[in-house]
Amino acid sequence: FDKDLYEGNEMAGVVTGLAWTPVGGDILFIESNLSRGKGVLTLSGQLGDVMKESAMTALSYLKSNSDSLNIDYRIFQHYDLHIHVPQGAVPKDGPSAGITMLTSMASIFTQRKIKNNLAMTGEITLRGKVLPVGGIKEKILAAKRANIKEIILCYKNQKDVEEIGEEYTKGLKFHYVDLVPEVLEVALLKTKVDNAIEFILPKPKDE
Amino acid sequence: FDKDLYEGNEMAGVVTGLAWTPVGGDILFIESNLSRGKGVLTLSGQLGDVMKESAMTALSYLKSNSDSLNIDYRIFQHYDLHIHVPQGAVPKDGPSAGITMLTSMASIFTQRKIKNNLAMTGEITLRGKVLPVGGIKEKILAAKRANIKEIILCYKNQKDVEEIGEEYTKGLKFHYVDLVPEVLEVALLKTKVDNAIEFILPKPKDE
Amino acid sequence: FDKDLYEGNEMAGVVTGLAWTPVGGDILFIESNLSRGKGVLTLSGQLGDVMKESAMTALSYLKSNSDSLNIDYRIFQHYDLHIHVPQGAVPKDGPSAGITMLTSMASIFTQRKIKNNLAMTGEITLRGKVLPVGGIKEKILAAKRANIKEIILCYKNQKDVEEIGEEYTKGLKFHYVDLVPEVLEVALLKTKVDNAIEFILPKPKDE
Amino acid sequence: FDKDLYEGNEMAGVVTGLAWTPVGGDILFIESNLSRGKGVLTLSGQLGDVMKESAMTALSYLKSNSDSLNIDYRIFQHYDLHIHVPQGAVPKDGPSAGITMLTSMASIFTQRKIKNNLAMTGEITLRGKVLPVGGIKEKILAAKRANIKEIILCYKNQKDVEEIGEEYTKGLKFHYVDLVPEVLEVALLKTKVDNAIEFILPKPKDE
Amino acid sequence: FDKDLYEGNEMAGVVTGLAWTPVGGDILFIESNLSRGKGVLTLSGQLGDVMKESAMTALSYLKSNSDSLNIDYRIFQHYDLHIHVPQGAVPKDGPSAGITMLTSMASIFTQRKIKNNLAMTGEITLRGKVLPVGGIKEKILAAKRANIKEIILCYKNQKDVEEIGEEYTKGLKFHYVDLVPEVLEVALLKTKVDNAIEFILPKPKDE
Amino acid sequence: FDKDLYEGNEMAGVVTGLAWTPVGGDILFIESNLSRGKGVLTLSGQLGDVMKESAMTALSYLKSNSDSLNIDYRIFQHYDLHIHVPQGAVPKDGPSAGITMLTSMASIFTQRKIKNNLAMTGEITLRGKVLPVGGIKEKILAAKRANIKEIILCYKNQKDVEEIGEEYTKGLKFHYVDLVPEVLEVALLKTKVDNAIEFILPKPKDE
Ligand SMILES: [Ca+2]
Ligand SMILES: [Ca+2]
Ligand SMILES: [Ca+2]
Ligand SMILES: [Ca+2]
Ligand SMILES: [Ca+2]
Ligand SMILES: [Ca+2]
Ligand SMILES: [Ca+2]
Ligand SMILES: [Ca+2]
Ligand SMILES: [Ca+2]
Ligand SMILES: [Ca+2]
Ligand SMILES: [Ca+2]
Ligand SMILES: [Ca+2]
Repeated sequence: FDKDLYEGNEMAGVVTGLAWTPVGGDILFIESNLSRGKGVLTLSGQLGDVMKESAMTALSYLKSNSDSLNIDYRIFQHYDLHIHVPQGAVPKDGPSAGITMLTSMASIFTQRKIKNNLAMTGEITLRGKVLPVGGIKEKILAAKRANIKEIILCYKNQKDVEEIGEEYTKGLKFHYVDLVPEVLEVALLKTKVDNAIEFILPKPKDE
Repeated sequence: FDKDLYEGNEMAGVVTGLAWTPVGGDILFIESNLSRGKGVLTLSGQLGDVMKESAMTALSYLKSNSDSLNIDYRIFQHYDLHIHVPQGAVPKDGPSAGITMLTSMASIFTQRKIKNNLAMTGEITLRGKVLPVGGIKEKILAAKRANIKEIILCYKNQKDVEEIGEEYTKGLKFHYVDLVPEVLEVALLKTKVDNAIEFILPKPKDE
Repeated sequence: FDKDLYEGNEMAGVVTGLAWTPVGGDILFIESNLSRGKGVLTLSGQLGDVMKESAMTALSYLKSNSDSLNIDYRIFQHYDLHIHVPQGAVPKDGPSAGITMLTSMASIFTQRKIKNNLAMTGEITLRGKVLPVGGIKEKILAAKRANIKEIILCYKNQKDVEEIGEEYTKGLKFHYVDLVPEVLEVALLKTKVDNAIEFILPKPKDE
Repeated sequence: FDKDLYEGNEMAGVVTGLAWTPVGGDILFIESNLSRGKGVLTLSGQLGDVMKESAMTALSYLKSNSDSLNIDYRIFQHYDLHIHVPQGAVPKDGPSAGITMLTSMASIFTQRKIKNNLAMTGEITLRGKVLPVGGIKEKILAAKRANIKEIILCYKNQKDVEEIGEEYTKGLKFHYVDLVPEVLEVALLKTKVDNAIEFILPKPKDE
Repeated sequence: FDKDLYEGNEMAGVVTGLAWTPVGGDILFIESNLSRGKGVLTLSGQLGDVMKESAMTALSYLKSNSDSLNIDYRIFQHYDLHIHVPQGAVPKDGPSAGITMLTSMASIFTQRKIKNNLAMTGEITLRGKVLPVGGIKEKILAAKRANIKEIILCYKNQKDVEEIGEEYTKGLKFHYVDLVPEVLEVALLKTKVDNAIEFILPKPKDE
Repeated sequence: FDKDLYEGNEMAGVVTGLAWTPVGGDILFIESNLSRGKGVLTLSGQLGDVMKESAMTALSYLKSNSDSLNIDYRIFQHYDLHIHVPQGAVPKDGPSAGITMLTSMASIFTQRKIKNNLAMTGEITLRGKVLPVGGIKEKILAAKRANIKEIILCYKNQKDVEEIGEEYTKGLKFHYVDLVPEVLEVALLKTKVDNAIEFILPKPKDE
């Protein structure tokens, strides 16, 4: 089955994550979508409590660090954000998609492209720390099968990578990070996607 | 019992889907309805969580791709959308009505007719990819019984169709798609329904 | 016990339905009530999920077909609608009160009288189709006991009526329908109830 | 234990109901309270679903029949209504407090006194019909113990009263009613309570 | 363990209640807190349904009797009220903290001090009646251990006090009450707390 | 595993707490985050009911004591507060993070730094009392492992500390407190964090 093949970076907000499942590692796609609205967050894809809180945490981080990413804060107030994780019928949970969801949101809000052939896995905290996650070996095998070339991990997961034989990690470039800005430094390209959204925003009120 | 017969295309928003049930394939109708309101989405027909998320995903996709369909974004804000799937007492779930619900919404928001004798089945993602679904053989048999002439499927379901004997697919035209715009290209006619809604919208505020 | 006796048509919004229960057919009354408010819908009478969705579907149908019934759309926005189904302690569910609830709503919004000695049973869909329901024999027996003279059914239930012996249907006039407008054609009289509500509505805003 | 002793009519909104419990009949008090607000309804006293729906039905009836009781409709919008049924820790349910709650609300909204030594029991419907209830014998015995002199019942409960020996009903005056206005005709005095609320209402907007 | 030691009356809104627990009587503190907001009520301390309803009933009583306590009604609309009952991890329920919560609220809204060395227990109703509660003996023993000098009870609990030997009640002064105003007469001092809140309120709108 | 290593004080709102778990003591971090909004409180990190109520209590305390901390009350109304407790998948509950959450909030609202190498544990009440908590020995051992130098505890926990051998508490400085202001006196430094938020607030309305 070819779901796992890597699918390019023409669209803002589509980021490749790595998941652990009882039958082995897998890749997953986080999709983000903005539409004019009132700042409502919608989550779909049968996400569990922990994964939903991960998304909320990623959004809060982004809101209070919008300046460093040149995101106009009014976008948060005048657009609705929808995060979907295909396949829609497969229940998903856990904190390890934290950096993937945050990167997806950063891309959709900046309309910047995601680096090609990149995957990532790692929990985030509200202050932007990246925490290590489990299932590293299975996730790396799945990434290779899906033609991934670079992987972002918490620096505390480096030891897990080193325990895997080199034949499994050959051809993969690992980025070990401690904080969210390092993730975005690697993942977000400078260029915007084609047909980038031109945000329609009200004039700011006097303050 | 004749519920499964195809029922024409005089009404915007009524689209024929294909469902798998424990006792075989069946057709179902997705109905959409707009009334003046505040952008509220109502879902009925005893839909399960996955199917509800499918509807939310379809709506988000449509909102952020409204330009390409010539939908005035103010309709989303000043009309309420109701999606109903008869029969009202039969529980339904799963992601395979994704493209059917999206087509139904596209039709009701544009008031364009749906192609006659057409049915479809396929999951959608937020970025508009069409994913393959199961139960293809049973669904095709049901479509034939219901006088369907054309069927839209994900291109990844082509191999499932080819595994079925030709005597079962004779007289059916298959459209294999990868993305939502291809679905709408096939399904939405250029002509509007008779008595199309003339949307009543407030003047846009200065921006 | 005389609960089942038919009770006249002096009030808008009171319509007689036919129900199937484990101990036989019964009649039930759908009651509608409007009071100045903000468009809130309240349902009571221990209604189950399917029956609640039926009411929501009926209301959506009415909203988007208000023109043909000469209902000022502002009533939906400036009045609250309450639907109650006595007896309040008896749980009720199922889709078969669909046309009864829709007729009750149509009557309360137009303040038109309901035809005397009339009962009905049938599911509705969002586009206004009437679907067949079960328990026809028991329902007809109950209607006769309650002094009902005319009954509205889906045309697909005609065969169920014909299977019942003529001694049970004698004196009853059956209206077989396919679509909601046919139901209202039979059920709603041209005359308004005495003391019809004079709706108090704000001036429409410029559009 | 003397909870059941009748307690006078100095306060608007306090009405005596009759309840059936597994250990016999009992009286209960319905208390209503208005405070400036936004039309919120609060229910307390560990009320079950059916009893809550009874309260909602009573309020809807009152709202759409406010003219006949000379209640300014703006009170419904600018005051919050709280219904409490002591004792607060005892779960209560069922529809038989319908007319008692409606009378309590009518008294608090009109500030009119309740007739002294009066109790009542009966279900209401949204159109104002009074339906018969059970446990009549036990309720009457409890009313006598609590020094009640007059009782309002549905006319369909008259046969239940007549089955009780005269020695139990001696000294009690029964009012058999069919519709809510008959209940209020008996229960509500013309005089207002001392220190009646002077409602503070905004000027009505132009309409 | 010294949690039960009496803790002074320097703060508005802190009132001592008496609780019955499976291992004997205990005292508890009700804490109230106001902060600028929109009239939201927050309850914490793992309170059960009955206790939450008690708090809601107390607040409704206070709102509709604010004149007699010289509380500006706008405080209810422009401040948020939080009621907390330490210890935060211990589940609590039942109606017997009714008068304690009401007194706490009366103190925080008036900023008046609570009488020193005073405890109380009793259910309230919406019209301000005080109802008797259980566990009187255990509660009195706990009060003595905590250096309480005066106790407010429902007059119907007087017989429970008299059944306890005088050696247990010596040194305690009992206030037997029937109505809420009698509770506040005893509990609320005329003097305000030091650093009393100066409420910031918008000008009332024209009416 | 090195999660427990102490992590500096460069960020406002990050405070070190001490937790008891079935497998021994542990440190945890409370993270607070503000973003422009409407005063919404979001809690994440799989927090149980008691811990959520703790957070609500801390926020209420802070709101009504904002003057003494020089917090502009409009920040509560025009910013959203998010509290997260990593690791996001580990369920957490109990009242003992009360002072830690309150300190985290006080830091984020004032943008003042937290003292370095400081940890704390203790329940709070709404009036600002600090209550003792359990697991003191295990918590102290965890603090030492994580390089903590100072610990804030309720004065009633002093006896628990004294029961531990001096070899375990050597090098640790204990601050025994009774009230919240004593906690903040120790924990909050006078200096603000680098890049402190400059709050954007609307002009106060006339009052
Ligand atoms: Ca796979
Ligand atoms: Ca969970
Ligand atoms: Ca069929
Ligand atoms: Ca079928
Ligand atoms: Ca589910
Ligand atoms: Ca019957
Ligand atoms: Ca159900
Ligand atoms: Ca009794
Ligand atoms: Ca129930
Ligand atoms: Ca104790
Ligand atoms: Ca409960
Ligand atoms: Ca709990």
